[in-house]
Amino acid sequence: MKFVCTQSDLNIHLSLVSRAVPSRPSHPVLANVLVVANKATNQVSLTGFDLSIGIKTSFLAEVETPGEITLPARLFSDIVSRLPDGNLILEIDPEHPLTVRVSSLFGHYDVNGLGAEQYPDLPLQQTGDAIAIAAETLSQGLQGTLFAVSGDETKQVLTGGHLKVSDAGIEFAATDGHRLAVVQTIGGETGTGFDVTIPAKALSDLTRMMGSGKVSLHCDQGQAVFQVGDQYLTTRTLEGQYPNYQVLIPKNFSRQVTIERKPLAAALDRIAILADQKNNVVKLTIANEAVTLSSEAPDVGSGKETVPAQVAGDDIEIAFNVKYLQDAIRAIPTTELQLQMNTEKSPVILTPVGALQMTQLVMPVQVRQ
Amino acid sequence: MKFVCTQSDLNIHLSLVSRAVPSRPSHPVLANVLVVANKATNQVSLTGFDLSIGIKTSFLAEVETPGEITLPARLFSDIVSRLPDGNLILEIDPEHPLTVRVSSLFGHYDVNGLGAEQYPDLPLQQTGDAIAIAAETLSQGLQGTLFAVSGDETKQVLTGGHLKVSDAGIEFAATDGHRLAVVQTIGGETGTGFDVTIPAKALSDLTRMMGSGKVSLHCDQGQAVFQVGDQYLTTRTLEGQYPNYQVLIPKNFSRQVTIERKPLAAALDRIAILADQKNNVVKLTIANEAVTLSSEAPDVGSGKETVPAQVAGDDIEIAFNVKYLQDAIRAIPTTELQLQMNTEKSPVILTPVGALQMTQLVMPVQVRQ
Repeated sequence: MKFVCTQSDLNIHLSLVSRAVPSRPSHPVLANVLVVANKATNQVSLTGFDLSIGIKTSFLAEVETPGEITLPARLFSDIVSRLPDGNLILEIDPEHPLTVRVSSLFGHYDVNGLGAEQYPDLPLQQTGDAIAIAAETLSQGLQGTLFAVSGDETKQVLTGGHLKVSDAGIEFAATDGHRLAVVQTIGGETGTGFDVTIPAKALSDLTRMMGSGKVSLHCDQGQAVFQVGDQYLTTRTLEGQYPNYQVLIPKNFSRQVTIERKPLAAALDRIAILADQKNNVVKLTIANEAVTLSSEAPDVGSGKETVPAQVAGDDIEIAFNVKYLQDAIRAIPTTELQLQMNTEKSPVILTPVGALQMTQLVMPVQVRQ
Repeated sequence: MKFVCTQSDLNIHLSLVSRAVPSRPSHPVLANVLVVANKATNQVSLTGFDLSIGIKTSFLAEVETPGEITLPARLFSDIVSRLPDGNLILEIDPEHPLTVRVSSLFGHYDVNGLGAEQYPDLPLQQTGDAIAIAAETLSQGLQGTLFAVSGDETKQVLTGGHLKVSDAGIEFAATDGHRLAVVQTIGGETGTGFDVTIPAKALSDLTRMMGSGKVSLHCDQGQAVFQVGDQYLTTRTLEGQYPNYQVLIPKNFSRQVTIERKPLAAALDRIAILADQKNNVVKLTIANEAVTLSSEAPDVGSGKETVPAQVAGDDIEIAFNVKYLQDAIRAIPTTELQLQMNTEKSPVILTPVGALQMTQLVMPVQVRQ
């Protein structure tokens, strides 16, 4: 194997696939990145795989001699990331078939690897249900929902983001049982409708891969494959029935508040310091054309802030886990947002005021008076 | 107590004194910051003290009612740092003498504290040996040496930075037994000569206090007090005889290398990745008008980089702990530096090529061949 590439190409693509390299690999070769140099296409491909999520990416290089090897991901990217801008030569001396020499203008590094034949195959089949969607739309859907997935591994299906694909577009959803985030996006080319639940880690890696083009998704037999240009992300999908979350979202409300997002978010971040001292509960008092946020931590202190708002409906006192409220408000990208609710025991809906179809549902908490 | 101040004044001074608040206080009141509002001077002073190092600072405020209290440092600065720009009112309601209400335009926070009478006195006596020195000079001396102090608490006196004050200026020194850093500065107003060893933590806090004016230092009975404008840092000094380090620095050398600092530092940072895999040893081969850096980690890989240099004297191979060499080179601020040495077993001296009087001594390590 021998090829010439730029430090920047190798570095960017190495950091991308390194995300799929496990920190505690179940087999030594999984701590490595698979490097394949193809002379016919003048491309070098890199692969990282933790047996659940895999990332494969390719870039152009001058391939003199084709070949393949696996190299320790951490050491290899530590060296490459510190090398100066400019061309690098990567070469295997046939007498030392498991060592790659990385040469720059200033010197060279010999990195020992393991044979490519030990590396598992990446499941990249492009069969089954499929959709193509704009990267920007996908990114919007994931950013608006991913934070709400459950961290509780016993609730398997809730640890993933749910994608419901139809003729109209994709609906993204995530819930941990205490809150629910839903984003409806329009468009996308699809054949039939299907839905799939994908581990949050894979979706979060995906948001780092996307440029500005199209992303295609294929789902088949418990496996999903995303393709963005020359980059592939493959992941197992999560088994089990995803909750029918639409029935949880109330359709009618007796109270409605329209409020500026930034001052509300800033006040909440400050009140959170007090809430953090006790049980993370923040109380909202909605009355007199304002939302008053307050929190009390006995023996420590208390805080109260008031944010002006347009209020329709009767006065109400309602309490929340401050973190859930912060997350929901951060996910809303518009200048103004709407809070809609019925009673202090029923779910509250936060929505952006504007074009985006997003619903953030947060369950209130009951506070003993 | 009641005063009005800007959020930014309170925030800046709070973060400064918080550096002296212990994370695990031996007494509850030490987790607090002492706040004193003085009506006569219209000043508010803040104090943090861990019984070893103390910081006191003052700023202008509109003091309506004088008073004093201690407030939990962490909570108080978390709240203040998130408050918006503009004026804050801090006030104690006489009916709740241990609670401060912090009010901004948007709301208020009640923070519970402890009585000021519980807070220990800060030793701020301005007696004994004294010197005044430009902040810039002090900063230069500390930055050039502090990294070399020992982290080994059993070598008490080596855990501090040493200041030797004479008519000519201050000499700064630090050593951990494997390396030695010395900076000689010129100027400073002093009466007599004296020397003192000050805990590294105090000197590091001091570098964050300094503006551009004069810093005065008083040393008396195991205590040192630095004053920078309205800010005071007090610390115990370290007992014990500081090593006579000047005798360790060779005066004559049989080999001398002049080399550009940046390319040497960059190559060393890359070689360090390999050295890090094994025993942190980097080998320098000095020959043919170049310094060749190399490191080998059996089973993992190896690296070699060459940096051009002007070399006087015979060829030599000499090995170092890569971290010590990196630290010494980082501390040197000039474009070029000089390496001077005799044998592969005797200390190497690194000096800047330029005006600054700095000596970085590093002991080589012996490598089995």
